[in-house]
Amino acid sequence: MKFVEKLLNISRKNHSLVCVGLDTDLEKIPEYLLKEKDPIFAFNQKIIDFTSDLVCAYKPNMAFYEAFGSKGWDALKKTCEYIPGEIPIIIDAKRGDIGNTAKMYAKAFFEGLKADALTVNPYMGKDAVLSFLEYEDKCAFVLCLTSNEGAKDFQLSIVDGKPLYEIVAEKVLSWSEKESCGLVVGATHPEQLKRIRKIAPSLPILIPGVGAQAGDIESTVKFGTDKNGELAIINSSRAVLYASHEEDFAQAARKEALRLRDSINLYRKR
Amino acid sequence: MKFVEKLLNISRKNHSLVCVGLDTDLEKIPEYLLKEKDPIFAFNQKIIDFTSDLVCAYKPNMAFYEAFGSKGWDALKKTCEYIPGEIPIIIDAKRGDIGNTAKMYAKAFFEGLKADALTVNPYMGKDAVLSFLEYEDKCAFVLCLTSNEGAKDFQLSIVDGKPLYEIVAEKVLSWSEKESCGLVVGATHPEQLKRIRKIAPSLPILIPGVGAQAGDIESTVKFGTDKNGELAIINSSRAVLYASHEEDFAQAARKEALRLRDSINLYRKR
Repeated sequence: MKFVEKLLNISRKNHSLVCVGLDTDLEKIPEYLLKEKDPIFAFNQKIIDFTSDLVCAYKPNMAFYEAFGSKGWDALKKTCEYIPGEIPIIIDAKRGDIGNTAKMYAKAFFEGLKADALTVNPYMGKDAVLSFLEYEDKCAFVLCLTSNEGAKDFQLSIVDGKPLYEIVAEKVLSWSEKESCGLVVGATHPEQLKRIRKIAPSLPILIPGVGAQAGDIESTVKFGTDKNGELAIINSSRAVLYASHEEDFAQAARKEALRLRDSINLYRKR
Repeated sequence: MKFVEKLLNISRKNHSLVCVGLDTDLEKIPEYLLKEKDPIFAFNQKIIDFTSDLVCAYKPNMAFYEAFGSKGWDALKKTCEYIPGEIPIIIDAKRGDIGNTAKMYAKAFFEGLKADALTVNPYMGKDAVLSFLEYEDKCAFVLCLTSNEGAKDFQLSIVDGKPLYEIVAEKVLSWSEKESCGLVVGATHPEQLKRIRKIAPSLPILIPGVGAQAGDIESTVKFGTDKNGELAIINSSRAVLYASHEEDFAQAARKEALRLRDSINLYRKR
């Protein structure tokens, strides 16, 4: 099954555009979990149990697992195995490298972790992205316009009268013959999101930045979704995961995910 | 000790600008090693034993370790511990992410693996790079102009009358107050390397692409080194590691590393 099909299936079933980002941080999870053999997995497991009927995807952030070395990798592997098979896993790794190296990353994420998608950095160009597209049922979400301050340093540079991020969107669209590319656009740039959605009407767009980074939900939904009010994957990490630092953390995460899902749905085309 | 100082010390001691890239691939190492408990580490150990007096750095390529999940991570950790302390370890991971995530990567590589440097992707701009610079004795090598075909897609785009990679070089220089940045420039672009060295006369430049990717050694040395004939780190991975696929692989690797070191030194300013 194509990635987009899998995404639409669960998004319709759960009536949700919410992606929960699994940026699991030992310094922020409830203290009582630290007694567990694998606290990261124990935390993720509860978050998944309490949110899996409310999301269209999970997005583990590699850095938070790599910070714990091989133990972190194992915790992530168990997490990916635990996520229900119908929910796409988007590994947020922002990889990008020459062909023979990109193939090894693809092996790590698509075979080793059985992820459905990966975030990819465009700086190295077409061949760096294409190596991730040899798996036809997977998806490469290419960074287009990011939510951070430094986005202005290069992404907003004007090339041939257009900002670089628009050129990235155009190129990625042209590389996505088999519907296996998506874009990453921060919710902190609503006007630009509108432009990008125009350039790439049919690509899934992963949109971080509505939670801790304070992007606006109404404009994110209005400008980020496709003509059917779909294909936007709106991510929240910290606001969901750390809604409570107590034993009720999973219930609090559910409440926050539900609030986000419903706020998003308020603005969706029906 | 600053990264640059550590680099110059070993580079002078070993009279070498050679960096051996540890892109260790189970499909390419001698078959007899596959019986070892940790074949990747066993291979690296022999390569290090036979080349450590000939190099100025080692550059493990993360993808090749991540492809084997937590076992790969363990093999890399053992490798980093095995590399003599006087030789800088540059992890080729091409990371780049928003502040709180970049901090976790820095923790993974600089604390977990005790690496001295990391390759970083510039697309997300200043704050994504700066998070790696909080460790004063470490170095972030920022991708400037890469050796692959896709480099032309965005890196050569003209911004304000200059190619984007020059803007990247200028910005990275301006971010490198504490001598903690370097650049990555592929050996396949000698003319551009010359320009970049002019823009950033004092930054270390990591130069992949002289081996399997066939960059020219003379122009790489001439244009990549600083005014003293130093601060270029010329990487070869496959040509050294897989000089032989038999039991004499480490001896063959030594021969190739020696050949590369001496060819490079032929063209260095004295």
